[in-house]
Amino acid sequence: MSYSMVELIRTKRDGGGLEPDALRWIIEEYTADRIPDYQLSSLLMAIIFNGMSQDELGSWTEAMLHSGEVLDLSDVQKPKVDKHSTGGVGDKISIPLAPIVAACGVAVPMMSGRGLGHTGGTLDKLESISGFSTMIEPSAFSAQLEDIGVVMVGQTETLVPADRRIYALRDATGTVPSVPLISSSIMSKKLAEDLDGLLLDVKVGSGAFMKTTADATTLAETMVGIGASNDTPVTAILTDMSQPLGRAVGNANEIAESVDILRGEGPEDVRSLTVRFAAEMLMLSGEEDLHDATSRVVNAIESGSAYEIMIKLTERQGGDPAVIEDTDLLPHATHEHVILAKRRGVVTRCDAYDIGVAGVRLGGGRATKDDIVDPSVGFLIEAKVGQAVDQGDLLARIAYNDEAKLQSALHAVDNAWEIGDEAPSVGDLILGEIR
Amino acid sequence: MSYSMVELIRTKRDGGGLEPDALRWIIEEYTADRIPDYQLSSLLMAIIFNGMSQDELGSWTEAMLHSGEVLDLSDVQKPKVDKHSTGGVGDKISIPLAPIVAACGVAVPMMSGRGLGHTGGTLDKLESISGFSTMIEPSAFSAQLEDIGVVMVGQTETLVPADRRIYALRDATGTVPSVPLISSSIMSKKLAEDLDGLLLDVKVGSGAFMKTTADATTLAETMVGIGASNDTPVTAILTDMSQPLGRAVGNANEIAESVDILRGEGPEDVRSLTVRFAAEMLMLSGEEDLHDATSRVVNAIESGSAYEIMIKLTERQGGDPAVIEDTDLLPHATHEHVILAKRRGVVTRCDAYDIGVAGVRLGGGRATKDDIVDPSVGFLIEAKVGQAVDQGDLLARIAYNDEAKLQSALHAVDNAWEIGDEAPSVGDLILGEIR
Repeated sequence: MSYSMVELIRTKRDGGGLEPDALRWIIEEYTADRIPDYQLSSLLMAIIFNGMSQDELGSWTEAMLHSGEVLDLSDVQKPKVDKHSTGGVGDKISIPLAPIVAACGVAVPMMSGRGLGHTGGTLDKLESISGFSTMIEPSAFSAQLEDIGVVMVGQTETLVPADRRIYALRDATGTVPSVPLISSSIMSKKLAEDLDGLLLDVKVGSGAFMKTTADATTLAETMVGIGASNDTPVTAILTDMSQPLGRAVGNANEIAESVDILRGEGPEDVRSLTVRFAAEMLMLSGEEDLHDATSRVVNAIESGSAYEIMIKLTERQGGDPAVIEDTDLLPHATHEHVILAKRRGVVTRCDAYDIGVAGVRLGGGRATKDDIVDPSVGFLIEAKVGQAVDQGDLLARIAYNDEAKLQSALHAVDNAWEIGDEAPSVGDLILGEIR
Repeated sequence: MSYSMVELIRTKRDGGGLEPDALRWIIEEYTADRIPDYQLSSLLMAIIFNGMSQDELGSWTEAMLHSGEVLDLSDVQKPKVDKHSTGGVGDKISIPLAPIVAACGVAVPMMSGRGLGHTGGTLDKLESISGFSTMIEPSAFSAQLEDIGVVMVGQTETLVPADRRIYALRDATGTVPSVPLISSSIMSKKLAEDLDGLLLDVKVGSGAFMKTTADATTLAETMVGIGASNDTPVTAILTDMSQPLGRAVGNANEIAESVDILRGEGPEDVRSLTVRFAAEMLMLSGEEDLHDATSRVVNAIESGSAYEIMIKLTERQGGDPAVIEDTDLLPHATHEHVILAKRRGVVTRCDAYDIGVAGVRLGGGRATKDDIVDPSVGFLIEAKVGQAVDQGDLLARIAYNDEAKLQSALHAVDNAWEIGDEAPSVGDLILGEIR
């Protein structure tokens, strides 16, 4: 079947729907260099305005996922469940989560990303562990999953090449912020992992890409719908990203906080969300009772079995397990700067976006994709929303290596903390769930 | 001044306005190959949805018109006025109009186009005259204008290169139907002609690109506004294009009908519109009274002076003046097919679009830009809206050379004529005017 690309663009421009064969044709022809970038970018802008129906999205995503290799994990006997976060600040949950779920007998074939914009990335954080490699051959994937129940790697070049190309084009053509395009990008990559279930953490708030619960709900519903179209159960949890998650925002320091969680320690918000997410992943693997699932998760932490998996994972992927045993061995910055409360009162804002931007400026993220991440820098937050402080109390410690970068980072957090007279109402961390 | 193209795309996408310097920068950088097609096409699609303000359009059009050479007609002492039609079926008005206006002492530096879609083009029609060349050097332009008061040529390669490139991109990316983009394309080319005034014939109806008076009014107002931004007086007349203009639809046959008009003969609708347009062009040249202008026009026809200019124009541009003297010398098709009335009644529709499509299929227009136009084929319409007919009466004669093309053309006019029991109300040819 052959189509005229300009006619398909006109149809979408005028609010019409594109049939499944036409959507597949577009992905195939674009990936094969037979549709030029200037036609696809025009179609993408029309999608920004006119959207895509659930049917269109199902076909589009399926075509994307079949644009390259698809993992075959049929050798792996255990159910396979992954988790994806839409991105936040201080969001290290994947790192303790994957070993915990693996320790409960569920395989976690986790493919993560790098930091994007003001948000951190799981791969960058894992690479703070000396020797840890986030690239493994697809052929080694099954064996590692069988042996230790978890892999934590980057997207391989061979999986979903259409997404890589379309994403680069969107980035250059102002066509990033579209619920269908974001959803299909995420879901095509996740569905290529041959999963039995997927948990989505859809972040909401200043530090997230979705600023409102309404927008996040639309995104979550869209992705759950794509999962249904492709026979993969998906649970989406909406979580608050108005302030950073946990205390650590950086790379090495987020690994340390993750290890704390695996030891049954660490900040309460990170711990509670990790336990909830792990329980949801067990539900997606076939567990029927959330209470039972939660007990299994808590047991995996308290028994040390999840921590043991983290040690094995580190060894298996070339990392130094001594760094997990003693997180003081992680890279350290040379200097520390402290931010102090300017007045007495209660913290009413601790802005995730501002702190995320500051973290990137310190060197912990990338302004361009060729920048090298400094694992040692970052924030340790001492006062979050609802905390009562006296004038001069510690709000945050900043680990830094470069004075100019510190000044630039401090500029970003000028208004990150707000201290008021009355305690604010602190909302729930979990804002909704869609299955 | 330098900009980020992706930021400008985002601004337009989100409904913001672009500043004059940014619009100029886009045109300059795109023309210089420093903005890729895929970014411009994305911006053009955002303009399809979010439009452009009158201020934006003024700057955009001005930047386009300065993307290449601009005519310098300062040597020409007479006022210079041109006319542009948005395109119709049987619309040969430019051909008698230009010599008439020249005969009244106004210089007409007319640059026309070729057939586009279902509509005919002045250049294709003129080339039915043996030897007539529609390309003359810009350097010869002034001299011809001084000597005989009129040139009728195609757009030169050096004028408004940005429009040629942007139009080709729009054609391939579904971004043609946009009032600001259509307006800036037309106006940049016309303003590059160094005019003292411009008359626009904005066609409305099935055979026009604008199907409703409301849409045509918007287009007309937009173009008049661009003229004002660039200090060029523009008059726009909205005219009916629900049925073809005159009797002839083709190329050679439209030349013959044009010559009839210059001899004071020809169909009443073509004659009345030609006279009105000529008078409007005289008004744009400084004439203050429409009645006086009309008298001058009628005199130019009746005295034969307009006809004489047509002879001179033909000679000057390499054509054979004998063809004007005797239009039977124009190319003739080998066969004729007649369309007859299937019933007795009154013609209630004679559809311009259907007949335009049929004319292209006969070979009188182009399906692709490399097709060669057959000047000899076309329609002579014998019954238009309001005409009473008996069963078997002649509706139209079709001149053709190829049986397969005839069949394809006949298919297009299956429903072009409608015959009813009651006489329809026949609307005015002129539907509005905007100055």
